[in-house]
Amino acid sequence: MPERPLTPRHDPDARGFASDNYAGIHPEVLAAIGTANGGHQISYGEDVYTEHLTEVFRAHFGERAEVFPVFNGTGANVVGLQSMTDRWDSVICAATAHINVDECGAPEKVAGLKLLTVATPDGKLTPELVDTHAWGWGDEHRAQPRVVSFAESTELGTVYTVDEIAALVAHAHDHGMLAHLDGSRLANAAAALDVPLRALSTDVGVDVLSFGGTKSGLMFGEAVVVLNPDAARGIKYLRKAAMQLASKMRFVSVQFEALLAGDLWLRNARHANAMAALLAEKVADLDGVTLSRMPQANAVFAVLPTDVTERMQKRFRFYTWDESIGEVRWMTAFDTTEADIDAFATALAEELGAR
Amino acid sequence: MPERPLTPRHDPDARGFASDNYAGIHPEVLAAIGTANGGHQISYGEDVYTEHLTEVFRAHFGERAEVFPVFNGTGANVVGLQSMTDRWDSVICAATAHINVDECGAPEKVAGLKLLTVATPDGKLTPELVDTHAWGWGDEHRAQPRVVSFAESTELGTVYTVDEIAALVAHAHDHGMLAHLDGSRLANAAAALDVPLRALSTDVGVDVLSFGGTKSGLMFGEAVVVLNPDAARGIKYLRKAAMQLASKMRFVSVQFEALLAGDLWLRNARHANAMAALLAEKVADLDGVTLSRMPQANAVFAVLPTDVTERMQKRFRFYTWDESIGEVRWMTAFDTTEADIDAFATALAEELGAR
Amino acid sequence: MPERPLTPRHDPDARGFASDNYAGIHPEVLAAIGTANGGHQISYGEDVYTEHLTEVFRAHFGERAEVFPVFNGTGANVVGLQSMTDRWDSVICAATAHINVDECGAPEKVAGLKLLTVATPDGKLTPELVDTHAWGWGDEHRAQPRVVSFAESTELGTVYTVDEIAALVAHAHDHGMLAHLDGSRLANAAAALDVPLRALSTDVGVDVLSFGGTKSGLMFGEAVVVLNPDAARGIKYLRKAAMQLASKMRFVSVQFEALLAGDLWLRNARHANAMAALLAEKVADLDGVTLSRMPQANAVFAVLPTDVTERMQKRFRFYTWDESIGEVRWMTAFDTTEADIDAFATALAEELGAR
Amino acid sequence: MPERPLTPRHDPDARGFASDNYAGIHPEVLAAIGTANGGHQISYGEDVYTEHLTEVFRAHFGERAEVFPVFNGTGANVVGLQSMTDRWDSVICAATAHINVDECGAPEKVAGLKLLTVATPDGKLTPELVDTHAWGWGDEHRAQPRVVSFAESTELGTVYTVDEIAALVAHAHDHGMLAHLDGSRLANAAAALDVPLRALSTDVGVDVLSFGGTKSGLMFGEAVVVLNPDAARGIKYLRKAAMQLASKMRFVSVQFEALLAGDLWLRNARHANAMAALLAEKVADLDGVTLSRMPQANAVFAVLPTDVTERMQKRFRFYTWDESIGEVRWMTAFDTTEADIDAFATALAEELGAR
Repeated sequence: MPERPLTPRHDPDARGFASDNYAGIHPEVLAAIGTANGGHQISYGEDVYTEHLTEVFRAHFGERAEVFPVFNGTGANVVGLQSMTDRWDSVICAATAHINVDECGAPEKVAGLKLLTVATPDGKLTPELVDTHAWGWGDEHRAQPRVVSFAESTELGTVYTVDEIAALVAHAHDHGMLAHLDGSRLANAAAALDVPLRALSTDVGVDVLSFGGTKSGLMFGEAVVVLNPDAARGIKYLRKAAMQLASKMRFVSVQFEALLAGDLWLRNARHANAMAALLAEKVADLDGVTLSRMPQANAVFAVLPTDVTERMQKRFRFYTWDESIGEVRWMTAFDTTEADIDAFATALAEELGAR
Repeated sequence: MPERPLTPRHDPDARGFASDNYAGIHPEVLAAIGTANGGHQISYGEDVYTEHLTEVFRAHFGERAEVFPVFNGTGANVVGLQSMTDRWDSVICAATAHINVDECGAPEKVAGLKLLTVATPDGKLTPELVDTHAWGWGDEHRAQPRVVSFAESTELGTVYTVDEIAALVAHAHDHGMLAHLDGSRLANAAAALDVPLRALSTDVGVDVLSFGGTKSGLMFGEAVVVLNPDAARGIKYLRKAAMQLASKMRFVSVQFEALLAGDLWLRNARHANAMAALLAEKVADLDGVTLSRMPQANAVFAVLPTDVTERMQKRFRFYTWDESIGEVRWMTAFDTTEADIDAFATALAEELGAR
Repeated sequence: MPERPLTPRHDPDARGFASDNYAGIHPEVLAAIGTANGGHQISYGEDVYTEHLTEVFRAHFGERAEVFPVFNGTGANVVGLQSMTDRWDSVICAATAHINVDECGAPEKVAGLKLLTVATPDGKLTPELVDTHAWGWGDEHRAQPRVVSFAESTELGTVYTVDEIAALVAHAHDHGMLAHLDGSRLANAAAALDVPLRALSTDVGVDVLSFGGTKSGLMFGEAVVVLNPDAARGIKYLRKAAMQLASKMRFVSVQFEALLAGDLWLRNARHANAMAALLAEKVADLDGVTLSRMPQANAVFAVLPTDVTERMQKRFRFYTWDESIGEVRWMTAFDTTEADIDAFATALAEELGAR
Repeated sequence: MPERPLTPRHDPDARGFASDNYAGIHPEVLAAIGTANGGHQISYGEDVYTEHLTEVFRAHFGERAEVFPVFNGTGANVVGLQSMTDRWDSVICAATAHINVDECGAPEKVAGLKLLTVATPDGKLTPELVDTHAWGWGDEHRAQPRVVSFAESTELGTVYTVDEIAALVAHAHDHGMLAHLDGSRLANAAAALDVPLRALSTDVGVDVLSFGGTKSGLMFGEAVVVLNPDAARGIKYLRKAAMQLASKMRFVSVQFEALLAGDLWLRNARHANAMAALLAEKVADLDGVTLSRMPQANAVFAVLPTDVTERMQKRFRFYTWDESIGEVRWMTAFDTTEADIDAFATALAEELGAR
């Protein structure tokens, strides 16, 4: 028992719609951290929880899967992409990809990766869009296209179907490239499509996956999951050099065990998705609200009058997505409640009515 | 309450002497994580716990201190050193420095830093040793020496006195260089010298500090602490690009609050140091044991017969440090007990007697 | 006199239309190399020819200009851009920019620069196009936009007017960014517009310039020219670390002296431009040829029937630019002759007639 | 004929002893540049002179040799080392190696290479010295030792025997490492030992060679020579990304042809070496001069009274090597004359006599 317990500085019942990483730790995950505590364990990943993690991940991703826990999603993406590329390679991705817009240039600055970006209507790559950059192999003036990197679900809240991923990955392979999946919200996509995780990854030929834990209820923790061991080299060194090797790794690994050994990942994802659907349903008919995209996972995009947005942002946290058209984004999380949705929809109706 | 509590896979009462990062989370720290849980908080460091952290650190390091929590010690070192240097600079350090030998080349590979290394008798730099590399400013053929980086306590378990650090830092400054302190075990050094943390850092002119939490009982977490704001640039960007920006940062920050708002850091450090002293005392007179260094903080170095080392390593975890002379290293931690020491010393006596 | 003169392996009278860097060394430049030969000169740029070069460049670019000769254009661009940026910055450029498409990712791989690319109709940036990327300062998730880089003339053979450059540079400065000019063909643009070199650079506020020599008749050699000394840091170190510091630099510098001390740069540029205009004129009315862009400097872009292109490429070297629309590019150089143009136009008429 | 020939700014008969890269272009090399001039040749290395170069190099280095001309020695070293390593590797070299002390950190900054440096008595590595760093494979905390890089002749003017190189290379290979030879003065070493170039490289198992041209009389130009094609990957891309790909490459290649197709390399090296020997002989018996190393190639190291050094440096250019012991370095070049030696020795006798 702590002698001097800290005073809480925040309201544990206040939640918003800004991001699924505004949420905290799922209670089962926090309990798991406690389970792994006490005593000594070998550091840097040779502990028994990390050892067991291979089994946990293989149950989802198949017998060839190799798992490398890291600290965060940027780390998972950069380590994974480095393992798939030579120094002279480049990566094809959507212009909206997290690796392109949200990582302060980490792929370029840490890994020297050139990103070949392509505009998309909905955040999703297609074989045709890939082809705008998939050329020039053997030409030394061109950083060699080696990886197609895509996210499921995307930064725009859209979800690739199984067939769409299969076609995209096959296209990459047909051109001698590899497929990298940024799966920081893979659980939400799998829940939305009602398919197992492997249906969107292993079974359709994805080579390396960044599997997200933080947005699913972990305190922190992502994993580089190698699905095709022939496609990745040197990850253990790259992880250390990229400063992503946790000394007390048991506490990352046990969180993933809590998430994936049972169905917590699915419960959390289904819940967050259901809350997004409920939110969309509740606001769809409000006069002044236009849903700019039908929610496919746990994000709702809507267009609002600017003054309403401003007043609502004083009451609930959420982000403006595209100022030029008045579009906002509302994210739900594993801990969003129906009461949260009700309160938000009621407030929105009030603000719209007050114009 | 978790619906499906995980089964422990390890013995929470088994401890060894391999490293202070084999230990787990101090109960007060784990409790603090729980305190910060629940509800939503702005991610990436704009939460109330991180906001409060500045006050916590300034109480120790003075009113100019700025704190940037990161994931691990390698991250703290690389981000801190980048913030102090231009692309063409180099860093003077001991050949035994963690940044030189234990980070898979992260300073070179992530930050392009050239390390100018110098052999030392005891892991400690001196002005004279610094001078072997402190020259060549203005010569474009030479990566410009800009930072002197040293650790307190060192990788060899030695502790600089306050005066030694003051002289080293002044020497760096006299040559237009900056001083970086790798303080992954600064608490142990301060406890050993019975001085406040600032006596070894702020008060003697250190510019940027990597302050360690993990080895003091955190689950994970280190901090770049800027003591001289004129000496560091761009840390918030560098931290993100270096993949060291935690999304749910409140859980890093609150751990540091648990460590530093009261005296947990000191209790833990004093305890670990005392256990090292006790261990040294208990084995010093055993026939066949030579203490190769007097313990100054929480590391004990001893020379043993090789066969004894091998048999002891089957019973307790610890590392061989220098195989050529039969030297081993025993580290104590915040959770090492007197009973652990007794058991170890008894076992060592047995194994020595069995020869 | 050489004892064993080498046998020529090529036809010194054969010329094509593939690139202005297929041409050799202008005789005045080669003579200048001979002038600088013999005796010893301090290496790495402390020779008398390099010393004099500042005066030569200041006559063109004003009294604040500082010149750093380097080996090639990629080197000039990368060194210049590094000198203008911190590690966390990004560079806005056209998607067609040489730094984006022709340098094997050197800006990313050597300098860790993130390029923010924008599609353009004609290879030319505008303030509006810049604005698609000019945002997000202070947001650590975004590599900070710091430089607008543009080429004059562009990779598409187009030429910015003086006013267009002035507006672009002012826009960059208004947003706290710097302006970088890739001037590998600046001479051609100045000649086309009939303005001095400084009208397109110094006088309109460009901060750092890559000034091209190779395409103007040098054997090799480009120069980083700092027009605003407040905008660039550490170039001498960056040049060395980027492996762009020539030991026998006198032979780079004297070539630039030959080019710029008199009017050789202008004679060569005017001639190349005139040859492009002549070529355009001669082929414009041929049935089956569509000039896809009016030549503004020394490049002619035309759309031809694919079979004609293929047969012509067996007779003369030139590149297909956009296979999808049958567009080809013809470049002229300082050594292109009217007879070359005649022969080419005649052959083209033949091949078109043979269909 | 140039219309406006440039005025020479230097004395073509003044020579010093500072460095072999203070010398200019050998007349046969300059003539060869003229031979390759005129007409158009495909740029970036697809010209007929570069095509022929493979044959030229294979005559010296054997049938497996592949040659990649680059601009300078730093470029050759960095490109070569990158081609032999993965991102997580390190390179063992002497502390005095050019890659460690004279390249502004280019190996670290451009290539992310960690250098594991070892002090040597004479600039030469031995298997025993290599062993101080040759360990830790498989340990992710350690940048993996992959290459042993050594220079022939060394920065200290010393020359490895054939057997010494054979033993060093075999030792590297026995440990699963590769051997890289910095041969910026390989010609001098071969001449000194009276062996062919391949005796010091191909025949003793060197994997990749940086072959120097500049110090042998080229205007500029070095070459990455792959002797073991299994040991190097991606050089053509690495050369471009490292900004070492010359557009008008024919003028680099033809210089190498002038050097290597006949015996110019050997004549120049023998001459420079002979001048060094003559210089050593002439000054050895002067009172106040101590030869600190017997000259083995084209460098003479001597200890002089400081005041004599200062006065001599006003009359002839040369470098102080080790100020602490009054050691100076005198380099001879292909163009050093006996009269130069006489003048220098006479002046030295004067200055020593004047004390």
